[in-house]
Amino acid sequence: MNCIIASTSTIHGSGYLKYLKSVLTSYFKGVNHILFIPYARPSGLTHDEYTAKAKEGLSFLKVEVKGLHEFEDPKQAIQSSEAIFVGGGNTFLLVKTLQDFGLMSVLKDKILSGTPYLGTSAGSNICGPNMQTTNDMPIVRPESFETLGILPFNINAHYIEPDPNSKHKGETRRTRIKEFQVFNDINVIGLKEGSWLEVRGETIQLKGQLDAIWFEPSNTPKIIKSENYI
Amino acid sequence: MNCIIASTSTIHGSGYLKYLKSVLTSYFKGVNHILFIPYARPSGLTHDEYTAKAKEGLSFLKVEVKGLHEFEDPKQAIQSSEAIFVGGGNTFLLVKTLQDFGLMSVLKDKILSGTPYLGTSAGSNICGPNMQTTNDMPIVRPESFETLGILPFNINAHYIEPDPNSKHKGETRRTRIKEFQVFNDINVIGLKEGSWLEVRGETIQLKGQLDAIWFEPSNTPKIIKSENYI
Repeated sequence: MNCIIASTSTIHGSGYLKYLKSVLTSYFKGVNHILFIPYARPSGLTHDEYTAKAKEGLSFLKVEVKGLHEFEDPKQAIQSSEAIFVGGGNTFLLVKTLQDFGLMSVLKDKILSGTPYLGTSAGSNICGPNMQTTNDMPIVRPESFETLGILPFNINAHYIEPDPNSKHKGETRRTRIKEFQVFNDINVIGLKEGSWLEVRGETIQLKGQLDAIWFEPSNTPKIIKSENYI
Repeated sequence: MNCIIASTSTIHGSGYLKYLKSVLTSYFKGVNHILFIPYARPSGLTHDEYTAKAKEGLSFLKVEVKGLHEFEDPKQAIQSSEAIFVGGGNTFLLVKTLQDFGLMSVLKDKILSGTPYLGTSAGSNICGPNMQTTNDMPIVRPESFETLGILPFNINAHYIEPDPNSKHKGETRRTRIKEFQVFNDINVIGLKEGSWLEVRGETIQLKGQLDAIWFEPSNTPKIIKSENYI
């Protein structure tokens, strides 16, 4: 495998994908075409609008970016793609659309064969065994919560620690992940905004300047330092 | 109907249910037994632990509080109950458990017949047509997202406005609700912590000191002032 699995597309004070510019320039070196999967539709953007945004965000690469919705046969488009980018938005909508078109296993096989894969946010959430550590609202109902399973643990994207000054009583991210692990024997990595995982063959490395948080069902959460392997 | 539908059980700096003490004292006047439904299991509490917490929280009432899990026949327990309290926690887990025991329509009929109903957080989310504006993690998968539908609109509990100083790029609550309404033609009320709805027959009134936010699919959000009818 050969993946960049990022917590977010955008960090505070920076443009779309800009914090990943040098990483992506080197990662996509030699690539001429990127297939963009716009199904997660952030803020309800259309597939065309979202693909235009991805093109603009990747314009520093001098590659052709095409949306999966532009192809008549999406299975074949994935199978013959040179590199794939799945953007963020709503994870329920992304998973439902991939399922409705029967694309989950096609995408998995393609990534396992070594095709470069970039995921951000919802596009990263789908890399674990299931999507059940998403922060998103269940705006649609997928037939199954199972996802690609190319990683042996789940992602919690946009991970954020409890704010000690907050007066809000809604559940913290830690509480939510603990509740998940009461019912699911799956480890979870909380990836903060600005962090990403680099997957090269069998190795998975935490990149970016921040620590990540590692949750196991029966242990207290641990800190993973940047550059460490998981 | 005769319901108190609250955004949260607890506000900052106060104990469990304490901000509702005078409201509940008057609301449950003459009631001797409250049936508590502990299925939402906040932080993975057991049904016994959560019921003990509810008993302690309602101790100012001098009523008997019994957990639904203590009854052999939960349908019959709901049907013969004098008053019902559904506590918060994880909405997916609450809905799945109600569905697994076949209790959703029984509970709906009982509330429609005028039985006093108190919901907090997840217990309020289930009052709308569906649970799809919950903030919770999908830690389990219910067979359906449909809920009681005793209100003609959805609830977003623990509603919070975007923090203008936040550097976090995860979706705001407004963006999430907007995404929901791209796919669901359902109005939504954002109930801040400390707000509740009082439902008396056909009237629904916003109570507590704070405004609420009203979202319609094709309009800009509106503010609802406390004490106004919806």
